[in-house]
Amino acid sequence: MLNKNLIDLGDLSSAQIDKLIRRAKKIMQSPADYRHACDGKILATLFYEPSTRTQMSFQTAMLKLGGRTIGFDNPMNSSVAKGESLKDTISIISLYADIIAIRHPVEGTAMAASLYSEVPLINCGDGGHLHPTQTLTDIVTLSCEKGRLDNLKIGVCGDLLNGRTVHSLIKTLSKYENNSFVLISTPELSVPLYVIDILEKNNCKYEFSNSLADAVSDLDMLYMTRIQRERFKSEEDYEAQKNVFVLDKEKLSRAREDMIILHPLPRVNEITVDIDDDPRALYFKQAQYGMYGRMALILMLLQDDEFMIDSAKPELSGHRCKNPRCVTQTEEYLPNYCYEKLGMEMCHYCDKRID
Amino acid sequence: MLNKNLIDLGDLSSAQIDKLIRRAKKIMQSPADYRHACDGKILATLFYEPSTRTQMSFQTAMLKLGGRTIGFDNPMNSSVAKGESLKDTISIISLYADIIAIRHPVEGTAMAASLYSEVPLINCGDGGHLHPTQTLTDIVTLSCEKGRLDNLKIGVCGDLLNGRTVHSLIKTLSKYENNSFVLISTPELSVPLYVIDILEKNNCKYEFSNSLADAVSDLDMLYMTRIQRERFKSEEDYEAQKNVFVLDKEKLSRAREDMIILHPLPRVNEITVDIDDDPRALYFKQAQYGMYGRMALILMLLQDDEFMIDSAKPELSGHRCKNPRCVTQTEEYLPNYCYEKLGMEMCHYCDKRID
Amino acid sequence: MLNKNLIDLGDLSSAQIDKLIRRAKKIMQSPADYRHACDGKILATLFYEPSTRTQMSFQTAMLKLGGRTIGFDNPMNSSVAKGESLKDTISIISLYADIIAIRHPVEGTAMAASLYSEVPLINCGDGGHLHPTQTLTDIVTLSCEKGRLDNLKIGVCGDLLNGRTVHSLIKTLSKYENNSFVLISTPELSVPLYVIDILEKNNCKYEFSNSLADAVSDLDMLYMTRIQRERFKSEEDYEAQKNVFVLDKEKLSRAREDMIILHPLPRVNEITVDIDDDPRALYFKQAQYGMYGRMALILMLLQDDEFMIDSAKPELSGHRCKNPRCVTQTEEYLPNYCYEKLGMEMCHYCDKRID
Repeated sequence: MLNKNLIDLGDLSSAQIDKLIRRAKKIMQSPADYRHACDGKILATLFYEPSTRTQMSFQTAMLKLGGRTIGFDNPMNSSVAKGESLKDTISIISLYADIIAIRHPVEGTAMAASLYSEVPLINCGDGGHLHPTQTLTDIVTLSCEKGRLDNLKIGVCGDLLNGRTVHSLIKTLSKYENNSFVLISTPELSVPLYVIDILEKNNCKYEFSNSLADAVSDLDMLYMTRIQRERFKSEEDYEAQKNVFVLDKEKLSRAREDMIILHPLPRVNEITVDIDDDPRALYFKQAQYGMYGRMALILMLLQDDEFMIDSAKPELSGHRCKNPRCVTQTEEYLPNYCYEKLGMEMCHYCDKRID
Repeated sequence: MLNKNLIDLGDLSSAQIDKLIRRAKKIMQSPADYRHACDGKILATLFYEPSTRTQMSFQTAMLKLGGRTIGFDNPMNSSVAKGESLKDTISIISLYADIIAIRHPVEGTAMAASLYSEVPLINCGDGGHLHPTQTLTDIVTLSCEKGRLDNLKIGVCGDLLNGRTVHSLIKTLSKYENNSFVLISTPELSVPLYVIDILEKNNCKYEFSNSLADAVSDLDMLYMTRIQRERFKSEEDYEAQKNVFVLDKEKLSRAREDMIILHPLPRVNEITVDIDDDPRALYFKQAQYGMYGRMALILMLLQDDEFMIDSAKPELSGHRCKNPRCVTQTEEYLPNYCYEKLGMEMCHYCDKRID
Repeated sequence: MLNKNLIDLGDLSSAQIDKLIRRAKKIMQSPADYRHACDGKILATLFYEPSTRTQMSFQTAMLKLGGRTIGFDNPMNSSVAKGESLKDTISIISLYADIIAIRHPVEGTAMAASLYSEVPLINCGDGGHLHPTQTLTDIVTLSCEKGRLDNLKIGVCGDLLNGRTVHSLIKTLSKYENNSFVLISTPELSVPLYVIDILEKNNCKYEFSNSLADAVSDLDMLYMTRIQRERFKSEEDYEAQKNVFVLDKEKLSRAREDMIILHPLPRVNEITVDIDDDPRALYFKQAQYGMYGRMALILMLLQDDEFMIDSAKPELSGHRCKNPRCVTQTEEYLPNYCYEKLGMEMCHYCDKRID
């Protein structure tokens, strides 16, 4: 079903991703050429939970294109506090704005919102589910800094169980030729099975590691994520491993000179501050690449008629999704939309199995 | 007393309302002609209580005219939290901005603020008192969709006792030729006597109804409002009537094909979601008409020297207004301004009788 | 050490201050000439504590220069709530924005932030420490209204002990020829010794007064500040003096016709409202002068390559600053930067002595 909404980066073809990256690079090279590209257009940033970084990145992207922004960052200041449905809010905002960027703590909200939007809509994070523009940020950075998205040896480190940015990155990069992965974590925080399935299906090489120091020596890119004390079984487990997954000067000294370090931010203490000035530390510059990636995305959605996104056509299920974190639990009017996958009914909104 | 502040829609002549509507239509027809109309101008949106819809509507209106906006939507983040008076805030903001839109939970605040503003000021709601741009929204919608503001049979339904938007709409439409009204509510939530007085004075036909299903069949416009469970005397009363005032497919099937449905929003459950796609359901489009109405209003106030609003000249009363919800209770420096009506002294700010 | 950050007004030379004032006056005279001066530029306003007035002043200044703004006014809505360090926030924002205005409740934060900013940064208040653009506001007002910054007799009244704006104003004006000061306060709220030191060092005449009524009669400028009930030793002390430091019509009648009254705002009750319309009352207009001063400052920092600010080059201390309100207490990665003054090590961030 062709549309203009970016809910899931997986809905984009490789050709579309390449187009986005090429456009992002063109904007970087001559930003002045794009300063009036979106004159008179309005972006609404609807942030039902705070995320200054993502919101400012989108606002800056739109302003640098000549457009303007409206929106909110605090649900308590919005009509939502009066019990307004998502449908009503989106129905109206999409009559004010030319494009919408939405973030919400509930899974599937962006997809649900897109059903009622008259204008292109971008998912800026729906709970623990998807956050496509973070992955877009990651691959724009990779492409600009390594010159390619294939033939890469990629380490991902930290909380691989709960880190949606890691899952999305693996899913995206596994489609490119000859990428291999080193999955660095405790056994308890290892990637979920469905991610292994993706790797297997795409014939990607992968290995497990519980030592960042060992794994770091032969990587093209190291993707660090937050590891949280409370994820460990006991304080002893945490104490035993807390330094194993912290990237510091000593471990970095074992890495190749051309390895790059990314991080979705905010970091807590998994990268020591004394590394920040190392030329391989790209996690701040990554945020800037993300801004250019978002400029490219806004442009494609607003102005490129050929840039249509092909997402699964929903069908009606006889059952309601039972995922307690799914938007169908709170927005009652939503149809029981589903799609089929391996003979199972999957929720159109949160991608969990409906049983 | 001629000025440039829209505090009460009743201060506008019919000619001025017509001018606003005509201008709103022109903007709709060729928005590009107005894209630079307010270049370099700044609108301050001072929202002392949250109202995302109204605030975004004004912000969008100004942005689409080429202007820019400053403001706040959270009194706790403002100097107000430090105990600053309304007078001081307005005195300064009106030196920054070219036009002010203010919303405040206390009655009469917009009028009080206008005393100290150096620039045009628009009332975006002062407690339960007035909300002129909502009514402007309603009549722009009516004029565009029905082609006239007279010779209409209008149903208003829900909480007619407390709904200030209903009172203001009736007051405005009763000045036009040959409009008639059907007042649909429980006896407990019927319109206040002063509204009946207005209808009588203007020789408007009106009738009461306690059945939406019966009343809906012969209307040009149905204006729905929220009806709140707690307004009923008992849970039994609510249960007995809760469906009587909900517009659903069945009731809508009795309505004329050219009837239009409006609602000031947000709705709770007084209109079922399955009606939203009916062509008669205009409550979302109404929000868009409101944006155009606000664009017209901003233009008139900023650029049309002949568009002067004639509000009652205040006189000094010997007494202080005793309305506990009036701005005079909290802003002590305000003069005891009043005006005379039927031999009584009325408060210049909240329009309640001073006795 | 030459840079583009305004942390402390004391880092500016008199020539630079004069240049700022001259530019502010030029902007006032022909604002249209500057309407596109900052086209395409973005100001980030990072307000870690609310200050509507200062934030709106900066936003308006940037908008009137043709630029645009991003930012936040509520730390709870920002990544800070997730424990992100100041360094990380600034590292990223300075890749989005062309100039940063920061306010923070912790002393030394602006200086700390400037270490990690790639773009010019302006201190909008760091706890009780510095607030250079308030003093800029004061002297632009003085220069415009009195035509000079020297040969002035200046009264400062209220809480002279805790009022950082008073200290900064005295420090700045004491560098100009032949200014004299009347310090009007209770003995308990008298200026701290270091301010007296500054007056002595610059050979400024000064006198103490505990009567506003007496002192007011021979001033060129009276600078009023908030005096807080809780600053008095006892309720009796407060009652005895509460009217002594309130400027009212009676006291103002003793002042010269050409005296001007300033106030950093917000006021509570130290100036009675019935004075507001007196032509000598300039505290509202002062806010407007401040906006022009900020426009001049933004222009200088963004566009005048010769306008370099010369701040002390930091050296590494062997000790950590012990001021519990210093940014070094919360941002652990900050180097122990210091500078020498009279043989003592002073903290580079909060200017307190490191011992």
